[in-house]
Amino acid sequence: MEVSPRDGLQNEAVPVPTADKLALIDTLVSSGLRRIEATSFVNPRRVPQLADAEEVAARLPRGRVSWIGLVLNERGLDRAIAAGMDEVNVVVVATDTFSRRNQGVDTAGGIAAWHRIAERARAAGLRTTVSVAAAFGCPFEGEVTTDRVREVIASCATARPDELALADTIGVGVPAQVRALAAAAAAEAPGVPLRWHFHNTRNTGYANALTAADLAGDHPVALDSSAGGIGGCPFAPNATGNIATEDLLYLLGRSGYETGVDVAGLLPLGARLGGLLGHEVPGQLRRAGVFPGAQP
Amino acid sequence: MEVSPRDGLQNEAVPVPTADKLALIDTLVSSGLRRIEATSFVNPRRVPQLADAEEVAARLPRGRVSWIGLVLNERGLDRAIAAGMDEVNVVVVATDTFSRRNQGVDTAGGIAAWHRIAERARAAGLRTTVSVAAAFGCPFEGEVTTDRVREVIASCATARPDELALADTIGVGVPAQVRALAAAAAAEAPGVPLRWHFHNTRNTGYANALTAADLAGDHPVALDSSAGGIGGCPFAPNATGNIATEDLLYLLGRSGYETGVDVAGLLPLGARLGGLLGHEVPGQLRRAGVFPGAQP
Repeated sequence: MEVSPRDGLQNEAVPVPTADKLALIDTLVSSGLRRIEATSFVNPRRVPQLADAEEVAARLPRGRVSWIGLVLNERGLDRAIAAGMDEVNVVVVATDTFSRRNQGVDTAGGIAAWHRIAERARAAGLRTTVSVAAAFGCPFEGEVTTDRVREVIASCATARPDELALADTIGVGVPAQVRALAAAAAAEAPGVPLRWHFHNTRNTGYANALTAADLAGDHPVALDSSAGGIGGCPFAPNATGNIATEDLLYLLGRSGYETGVDVAGLLPLGARLGGLLGHEVPGQLRRAGVFPGAQP
Repeated sequence: MEVSPRDGLQNEAVPVPTADKLALIDTLVSSGLRRIEATSFVNPRRVPQLADAEEVAARLPRGRVSWIGLVLNERGLDRAIAAGMDEVNVVVVATDTFSRRNQGVDTAGGIAAWHRIAERARAAGLRTTVSVAAAFGCPFEGEVTTDRVREVIASCATARPDELALADTIGVGVPAQVRALAAAAAAEAPGVPLRWHFHNTRNTGYANALTAADLAGDHPVALDSSAGGIGGCPFAPNATGNIATEDLLYLLGRSGYETGVDVAGLLPLGARLGGLLGHEVPGQLRRAGVFPGAQP
């Protein structure tokens, strides 16, 4: 799942014009990405970068791609439905402190909102994906135990998500945690496809992603990534840097996975995003070059 | 094995004063690092940054640390012995083209030099460690097969190295290659302790390092890393970025490994090296901060 248009951009100080967002999205689609988190239907005063959600949604190329909008409450769901999104991604934060800062309710309140949203989204014909944020650690509370995440997963699972995501929102996780959380998810949400969201804040994101892919075996699994590695959460200190889509594709392709995505088509995005945002972006493949045999 | 004073610095354009190298080394030692590649005894015209090898060696704090010097030929060995090094690290490049560019002989010539050096170094009481460079891919020849590396390992092993290193000199490798090469080494150099050298050029270095550590089980294993993630090879295009010592320690510590190194003591090095070298260095932990529970 490509997240650059939403998680990638939301924390950037420089406003990105809607036309540039749509040009980014066009490149993502033409390179073969088929699930894209296009925008966020949250309070535009809190995330002004994504205040153009409806305008972006209205101009998305429909058909080949499943378009995803982040929502945190029913007001956001109403907007996502009206905008014709294919999926809603609902965030439940695993710790109370971070949950309150991110969305004004504690974890239980977030889970309750997810249940209301899931029911109404399903009735409206949208796929639902619930993301457990701070599942690998919290910037305010520190360690988050596997048992805590297990309880959150169990409470989320009763609303029957089409997909469950486990997110290392602040980039502290390691592969051992991926294995522990995968086991927790298998126990508490059996049969629900997993998605993983990693930041490379401390250089562990790619190891985590490959671990998650390898663990999946024949089961469906999705990995979030962001072209150029842009991204971060405005309410999580130092949470910079999603894993970069092009670097992830290099790793997966060279590890024997078929991704169906044209890495070469994505490489120009790093420089383009760097220009738009006014700073270098962290993805490294475009600087190093694709090595022979790495094309997935 | 800490490589910042040698592999880290050798490719840097700005000359680093000897006193600053020794200050770097002091911080490495006081943080608990116990094997340090201090310098290189190669032609100073080819690597002017390390032309002060004898001066650095003369002022190393002796006793607690095994001091390593890189050598490529017998002239270099003579200098390393005279300088009182504890170990010599000898590089054999797995591909002929890269070997000729790096040290003026093909792979067979490099292996022959290694045999001569190993015999004399052992006679002089020095530990020997042979590093097979470009074992994961070559900037000139492209893919390097496991069979090719297996042959190089076999030819190196007959000289009875105290340690065998497999180096991803240009940062193209993935964990599947680590597993394949570990199996090749176990077959061709049974009982010889392994060391691994990874660059993070394409964001795969940390995944490779953790894979190598996990594979070792109860066997001894060493990992090369460089404070701040500085480094690169002057004769390999785009080979920037060893894995950063502090980021590696974070990953290992949080994965349950005891390293005996004080990560907090290393964090100031990133900014200090950035100042010395005139550019940001790639290690990320110092920017993100050590997360609770990550102290090894």
